[in-house]
Amino acid sequence: MPEISPPDQWSCPLPVRAGERVVLGHGGGGVLSAELIEQVILPAFGGAPAGGLRDSALVDVPAALADGGRLAFSTDSYVVAPLFFPGGSIGDLAVHGTINDLAMSGALPLMLSCGLILEEGLEIDTLARVARDMGRAAHAAGVPIGTGDTKVVGQGHADGLYVNTAGIGVVPAGVEIGPARARPGDVVIVSGPIGEHGVAILSQREGLEFGTTLRTDSASLHRMVAGLLSAGIDVRVLRDPTRGGLAASLTEIAADSRVGVVLDEAAVPVPDAVAAACGFLGLDPLHVANEGKLVAVVAPDDADPALAVMGADPAGRGAAVVGSITDAHPGLLVGRTRLGARRVIDRPLGEQLPRIC
Amino acid sequence: MPEISPPDQWSCPLPVRAGERVVLGHGGGGVLSAELIEQVILPAFGGAPAGGLRDSALVDVPAALADGGRLAFSTDSYVVAPLFFPGGSIGDLAVHGTINDLAMSGALPLMLSCGLILEEGLEIDTLARVARDMGRAAHAAGVPIGTGDTKVVGQGHADGLYVNTAGIGVVPAGVEIGPARARPGDVVIVSGPIGEHGVAILSQREGLEFGTTLRTDSASLHRMVAGLLSAGIDVRVLRDPTRGGLAASLTEIAADSRVGVVLDEAAVPVPDAVAAACGFLGLDPLHVANEGKLVAVVAPDDADPALAVMGADPAGRGAAVVGSITDAHPGLLVGRTRLGARRVIDRPLGEQLPRIC
Repeated sequence: MPEISPPDQWSCPLPVRAGERVVLGHGGGGVLSAELIEQVILPAFGGAPAGGLRDSALVDVPAALADGGRLAFSTDSYVVAPLFFPGGSIGDLAVHGTINDLAMSGALPLMLSCGLILEEGLEIDTLARVARDMGRAAHAAGVPIGTGDTKVVGQGHADGLYVNTAGIGVVPAGVEIGPARARPGDVVIVSGPIGEHGVAILSQREGLEFGTTLRTDSASLHRMVAGLLSAGIDVRVLRDPTRGGLAASLTEIAADSRVGVVLDEAAVPVPDAVAAACGFLGLDPLHVANEGKLVAVVAPDDADPALAVMGADPAGRGAAVVGSITDAHPGLLVGRTRLGARRVIDRPLGEQLPRIC
Repeated sequence: MPEISPPDQWSCPLPVRAGERVVLGHGGGGVLSAELIEQVILPAFGGAPAGGLRDSALVDVPAALADGGRLAFSTDSYVVAPLFFPGGSIGDLAVHGTINDLAMSGALPLMLSCGLILEEGLEIDTLARVARDMGRAAHAAGVPIGTGDTKVVGQGHADGLYVNTAGIGVVPAGVEIGPARARPGDVVIVSGPIGEHGVAILSQREGLEFGTTLRTDSASLHRMVAGLLSAGIDVRVLRDPTRGGLAASLTEIAADSRVGVVLDEAAVPVPDAVAAACGFLGLDPLHVANEGKLVAVVAPDDADPALAVMGADPAGRGAAVVGSITDAHPGLLVGRTRLGARRVIDRPLGEQLPRIC
């Protein structure tokens, strides 16, 4: 059929160009979808996968998995507003957040997926910026974004864009980090100052300033966790205190392990700007979200080695012992205040700061 | 500290009740989030996982994976409007769709994740109905929903709710289904009548009727694929013709395998109601989305056995050979019309029917 010219001579009807905007057709699975993926998304993520674009990514089984390990699988959607804020964006947040969910199980992350829901009218440049942030964060973490999906919804929905990431990883044989493993006598460590992410978002959203500009603490924590495990530390429980803050993580540990948690409130590292913002807004820093911190419960003898491993990681500066596990009041988180009084600390009811991640 | 009563004596401040609506606090990671998950979502999904709720689900490595298999990993977001339509809902669609993406790589699905983005004001009953549809579809498919996340956005966004599912599966050793494996002489099979999903959504949305009420074809296809593989059929390529329809799947096969695809248009099973609707609306049935069909490229000798396997599956009724692979016009899909003429069939540019999945 020589009368039909090959497709590479057909003109591309609507190439994606700077200054253009997302249209509904970009989610239609046709030519426009393919262009958006090939011209905007894949370059930001570091190119197409080796085997070409398929319905699924395929991953060879790592030795740690074949060798008695378990698969870890996690997902998080990100709806943070605004999309860009001091120190980060929805893009790197979506990469760090799911990597951290895997890491909290002791998993070495293998791959991420990326599900985008775009609003009609979103500037392609904005999408490209978010995709580049995702690609850069994934590259820095050493975890590829291997599969994805893009949908478009009508103008007025989706606030620009929402991102879902899912992730898979490998928990090596013998690693048992679980919500129910805290034991009386154990020590509670937080990997650094709390409240930065929540206050950074709120400052940006409301145009408030609290002394210095606070930046999000958004960071990947899988290397810190790998460091703890390879140092032979018996990590009993790990949580990342995101929505609900440190208080939510600690009350969950108390409930899941059926132990009491004592929090030495004076020992909790709270940056001055976070304290100032929380005082002004009537928030409790213990309820404010973090995106680059972890809470670890370890055996008492492991506290100093764990602090040393955390301190050697850029994301672990300011790590501190903040409390202990007790059998005195199972199921409860009790704070010792600076004045020596005790108070029961509960999870927040709902959300102090909506759309924080 | 006997003065503090245990938490099981505290009253639950805002239990989730029928007739209630989603509030922003349901996405806050606090008490309300926990209630929504424990009272609405987990019961619909068949209860909490054995190891309790963690940041990641943990999966033992199946024998097929340890034994030289590969991991498959896929994701899809669902933004279909309306949420409920003849024969299905966004819930079962989200389960079937990601299972099918895994199946198109020859994978046996292991587990799904569920990321929900809820609109403030959504009726809890609506959420419960969607969650039950997800749970039922997952149970029927034998694939658990093992991990999830819930976010809430403000009123006017998210059209009720959006769902993301990701999935993991195992491609057994020796299975090599890939976009580039079609060879001249191969046969193209579609597993049943096309266009039902797209026309069902459109009829529901626009209040149109086309003779009989069309129902979505939404169905899980992993058992059909497993049947093809266990029958020893050399399946070269599999695609599920969702957005963009059969035309998009076949043009992608032509492009990826650098072969020509000839489509015998008279052989393509198009239900009368789909033909009537497409005629009325000026749509090409080849561009209309399906959610329970697959396109298989197989060696010529495997065509009859493949049709037999498909025909034995409830989702494979009406399977038919619809075309062949040629070296005559690499990269192109060429249709032979009912009148014997030939035409080049392209992917749609954008979307004929937005928000179809």
